[in-house]
Amino acid sequence: MQVALVGIGKIALDQHVPAITSSPDWVLAATVSRHGGVGGVPAYTDFAALLAERQDIRVISLCLPPVPRFAYAAAALKAGRHVMLEKPPGATLSECHALEGLARAGRLSLYATWHSREAAQVAAAKAWLADKALRHLSVTWKEDVRRWHPGQDWIWEPGGLGVFDPGINALSIVTAILPEPIHLTAATLSFPDNRQTPIAADLRFHHPGGAEVSAVFDWRQEGDQTWTIKAVTDAGTLTLTDGGAQMAVDGVRAAAQDDAPLTGEYPRLYSKMARLVQAGGIDMDLSPMRHVADAFTLGRRVTVAPFHW
Amino acid sequence: MQVALVGIGKIALDQHVPAITSSPDWVLAATVSRHGGVGGVPAYTDFAALLAERQDIRVISLCLPPVPRFAYAAAALKAGRHVMLEKPPGATLSECHALEGLARAGRLSLYATWHSREAAQVAAAKAWLADKALRHLSVTWKEDVRRWHPGQDWIWEPGGLGVFDPGINALSIVTAILPEPIHLTAATLSFPDNRQTPIAADLRFHHPGGAEVSAVFDWRQEGDQTWTIKAVTDAGTLTLTDGGAQMAVDGVRAAAQDDAPLTGEYPRLYSKMARLVQAGGIDMDLSPMRHVADAFTLGRRVTVAPFHW
Repeated sequence: MQVALVGIGKIALDQHVPAITSSPDWVLAATVSRHGGVGGVPAYTDFAALLAERQDIRVISLCLPPVPRFAYAAAALKAGRHVMLEKPPGATLSECHALEGLARAGRLSLYATWHSREAAQVAAAKAWLADKALRHLSVTWKEDVRRWHPGQDWIWEPGGLGVFDPGINALSIVTAILPEPIHLTAATLSFPDNRQTPIAADLRFHHPGGAEVSAVFDWRQEGDQTWTIKAVTDAGTLTLTDGGAQMAVDGVRAAAQDDAPLTGEYPRLYSKMARLVQAGGIDMDLSPMRHVADAFTLGRRVTVAPFHW
Repeated sequence: MQVALVGIGKIALDQHVPAITSSPDWVLAATVSRHGGVGGVPAYTDFAALLAERQDIRVISLCLPPVPRFAYAAAALKAGRHVMLEKPPGATLSECHALEGLARAGRLSLYATWHSREAAQVAAAKAWLADKALRHLSVTWKEDVRRWHPGQDWIWEPGGLGVFDPGINALSIVTAILPEPIHLTAATLSFPDNRQTPIAADLRFHHPGGAEVSAVFDWRQEGDQTWTIKAVTDAGTLTLTDGGAQMAVDGVRAAAQDDAPLTGEYPRLYSKMARLVQAGGIDMDLSPMRHVADAFTLGRRVTVAPFHW
């Protein structure tokens, strides 16, 4: 199947292009970007022109920042194309509902991807937790924004989500591995004095079984980076580290899952998209984004030191 | 049917109690409150005791502030009771989804009420707009917080929503009368320097037909109060004033709808709840609350003068 990739920035070049070009399912048939491109692939600067001229391309993958994404997704769906969305699937929950309405009306596939859910050990963690009683769950997601988002000013603008841009990855894993739904009960959001989005967040959740569930996100972490989820249950402690790539139970490291036919988060996303298009389905789980919106709505705002690159 | 009313504050005494006691469907069988009560009605201070001792009361109406409400709603649903929720239905979207899950599991009725949707002319406005092409829609919701929420400090605490507490009423009308869904594209939220929730908000929305849709909420309005929605269409201009109680088309005032068997927003809510319980349904439209969460997520924060009562 042919796919056009829209938004040729860091995430597109680092992840999407290699995943597509190494896939047995996909051919990268075109790119759309104001500046970037991929050698040997037809490059468009005008999305409307692509939709009009390339009726042969039935699938559009969008990796623009969330704020401009709706207009592209809506145009693609209205032009009868299947759509795959980088995370988060939009700038607002309501626009995601609207996209789902367009996809249903057009009988098109729409996939809100959560790449961290495809990390190597997430499925194993979900399977292990399925029959355990949870006592505590803590998320520690601490990274250096200067290393991972160098100069990306949009993350500090309204809708850019700030530290929730990586934090939503943790929430996408937690909502995937826990058998029961949680909801936020309290949050503290730390906004740099000169920025519109938080640089750190501290979240507490209600769990139906009474477990203590909490998360700490921080973008000011220099040196070692931490992307860890620790779940204490009645039958041992599970630890997911390295963003879900590694798992241990009571300190014993789980076997690597990398003998699966597909290695890596993005190759698995594109494989799922291929199956979704073939089956004619919609996969639009908004729960990670709902938790982020809940945190912005319910969170206590604290002002912290200004942030400069 | 017997109903227990939980949270005997201003809204309960002003609206819920008169609506229940004047209804042919309902008997006010008990109240639950730390302090207040209603003359001649058994008053509980402990909700668990009410649920245990009064198995004859099958319906619980909750008019507590949104933050503590989930625990009461979940306890009532787990105890097999039907539940009616004041607006907004919770402090977070995720907890509302969880309540809906509990209601479905227990085959119970759950009603997220939006009292402003029951204002006298809202149904007429919806009917009039159904076959028109919208060009502009503007909401002006300007009131004096000191007059309507005297001393209610919870509205300034995280989760209290600030000016979105009345603003969500406007959004509940807009989402009811427009035939197509809108979504937020930009917002400015004005936070008093000493408070956690906004005192004013300026919202812009995308409309599928390209209409300009905007809203201004302000809690600093002294003197005349304004709750107006103006919709300019290809076939005239509709104006809803007084929070939906009055309607005019091209300046000609619409006939009063008050010859209906039930007059007033809350009597109509309780009538709907009676029918919902009899039919065994769930009515949980979260779209007004989703727009508020979207505004907190996407909104640009501006700091304004401190607020003191």
